[in-house]
Amino acid sequence: MTFAFRLLGTDGPARLGEIATPRGTIRTPAFMPVGTAGTVKALTPEQVRSTGADIILGNTYHLMLRPGAERVARLGGLNRFINWERPILTDSGGFQVMSLSKLRTVDEDGVTFASHLDGSRHRLTPERSMEIQRLLGSTIQMQLDECVSFPHARDEAARAMRLSLRWAERSRRAFGDQPGHACFGIVQGGVEEDLRLESARGLAGIGFEGYAIGGLAVGEGQALMLSTLDFTTPALPDDRPRYLMGVGTPSDLVESVARGVDMFDCVMPTRAGRHGQAFTRFGKLNLRNARHAEDPGPLDAESDCPAASQYSRAYIHHLVKSGEILGMTLLSWANVAYYQALMAGIRDAIAHGRFADYRAAFHEAQARGEAGA
Amino acid sequence: MTFAFRLLGTDGPARLGEIATPRGTIRTPAFMPVGTAGTVKALTPEQVRSTGADIILGNTYHLMLRPGAERVARLGGLNRFINWERPILTDSGGFQVMSLSKLRTVDEDGVTFASHLDGSRHRLTPERSMEIQRLLGSTIQMQLDECVSFPHARDEAARAMRLSLRWAERSRRAFGDQPGHACFGIVQGGVEEDLRLESARGLAGIGFEGYAIGGLAVGEGQALMLSTLDFTTPALPDDRPRYLMGVGTPSDLVESVARGVDMFDCVMPTRAGRHGQAFTRFGKLNLRNARHAEDPGPLDAESDCPAASQYSRAYIHHLVKSGEILGMTLLSWANVAYYQALMAGIRDAIAHGRFADYRAAFHEAQARGEAGA
Repeated sequence: MTFAFRLLGTDGPARLGEIATPRGTIRTPAFMPVGTAGTVKALTPEQVRSTGADIILGNTYHLMLRPGAERVARLGGLNRFINWERPILTDSGGFQVMSLSKLRTVDEDGVTFASHLDGSRHRLTPERSMEIQRLLGSTIQMQLDECVSFPHARDEAARAMRLSLRWAERSRRAFGDQPGHACFGIVQGGVEEDLRLESARGLAGIGFEGYAIGGLAVGEGQALMLSTLDFTTPALPDDRPRYLMGVGTPSDLVESVARGVDMFDCVMPTRAGRHGQAFTRFGKLNLRNARHAEDPGPLDAESDCPAASQYSRAYIHHLVKSGEILGMTLLSWANVAYYQALMAGIRDAIAHGRFADYRAAFHEAQARGEAGA
Repeated sequence: MTFAFRLLGTDGPARLGEIATPRGTIRTPAFMPVGTAGTVKALTPEQVRSTGADIILGNTYHLMLRPGAERVARLGGLNRFINWERPILTDSGGFQVMSLSKLRTVDEDGVTFASHLDGSRHRLTPERSMEIQRLLGSTIQMQLDECVSFPHARDEAARAMRLSLRWAERSRRAFGDQPGHACFGIVQGGVEEDLRLESARGLAGIGFEGYAIGGLAVGEGQALMLSTLDFTTPALPDDRPRYLMGVGTPSDLVESVARGVDMFDCVMPTRAGRHGQAFTRFGKLNLRNARHAEDPGPLDAESDCPAASQYSRAYIHHLVKSGEILGMTLLSWANVAYYQALMAGIRDAIAHGRFADYRAAFHEAQARGEAGA
């Protein structure tokens, strides 16, 4: 009943692996649907699992405010609470304290903030974040870090990275001994190579079961994100999973795998689904658009997902226009399924040493769109 | 490939039957979940079917306004459009013209109204209503009628009933010859015995595949509704299904079956589900209530529905409080499943000649509540 990463193969910098956990195996490269407040929005756990997702993400910030970590613990932990038996990764809460809460003040010891729900005051320290994640029972628990927005001054990125490094040490210590669970450190340092390397070295010195790359996809754009990965992933230990936080578009995933990333999470497939948008092998569709009103074809006839293959675009257009919940459910489901199919395709390509072809074909199909399909 | 009702047995006035249709058999007494605008709100067709529903209802008023009957026909009919292969009953649109539209004017020929969506003007006649329902491809198509609200003057009820009778004749003629499909007449006449009998006799004289009782559950209360059934159902042909429109609570269903009704539809289980309420064998629960916040028990451990048996009340409370779509989905699913289980129990009781016991036990459990369970 241990947590163990195995690198099964590589194809250039792209890596194929698996993470064994007591709650099941996570095939990498992996995409983790985001279950913000204890639910991957608009989907049942069975629908999420049907897409091939091995692990989902939960947000410590949301869960600590409602329903509260102690309550979840009394109810048997997050897995039981949300009826999802497989692994869960929880973030530290730090990112959403910065993006959602009000009156945030950071000091050496932690961060104080006001809830976006009711204005109530809360305190998050590395120790409290790890305590919450332990109460939730997360399989993968993230260190508390401070993420700076983009653009940032170099000094500010350096300060936040070094604070995050000190918090990493405290998080690792607070995590303690939890067989079958893992604690991941988070590399910070903005888009500055020397800062990223300092961060990566510092974290490796502490030692974690996995290493995340934080502070990207915060407005810097894909080119700068990828160039930052170019110098960051090589600095991370080979024998540990690498997780790029909060990323991203299908193109982001393919390009980040090409740079050695193993794990991803993003609200994009579900958020887009709730707003009438579909991700497909041939790009993004806006189902609200009138051109779908009489289209009898499905989103993707070749998809294994019922939402993508068994309902017409005309019907989904109708549901979206009518504000029907089923429209959000079907699009969220189809989008998560598309993301999982993309990852399965990536894994298969790496396994067969043809990732470069897969990557080229992916970009070609996205650029060509459906008209050329 | 015909439409045929078979009465399999009776237990007092309660009837056990089945309706054979080319799209599958409808076991009666039957409850039809309401798929207003082409979706049983917040549920996939698979979830609806998993509850044991043999047939769902669609609203002509909603569908004619959006996406439009001609469009649905071009897309292969309502069954294909919404991905539901089994029978669909559509109402005539008349009831919702009265309850939802604006600027409604009724004349001998039909009704003119303004859409609640965009104010656009529309016309519904018996012929147009039947044409729409034929375009939708509904297995059971309802005559256009005029339903008066409660309380009503006797004269007004008589006028609307006689107009409905004339429209019944035109509807029957407009329905024409559609093998495997059925046209139902609708008994009107408010709560007046002689008017109801006049209506029932008139409809039987025209001849329909089934007879509905309209104009009830419009504010008259359960006692008056049931006393109206007491004199109405005996006036309907024994060899045709009887459908009580827009009803009702679990208690309404049990008491109406006891008076010889075979079919029901109501938005109650799904609407309540979207508002945090659950129907159970022991009454109604408000999951928003703080007393559920730490309750690890499911809605009903003995239910066959995953939504009722596999999720804790604490979790559903959390979802409802957080405004999460999954809360609406789980409660709608569990509620429709409860309604179907209730009907299955009723059918089984009639089959075994113990409906009186079932009815008594039902009321006892509802009155006792969970505390006494």
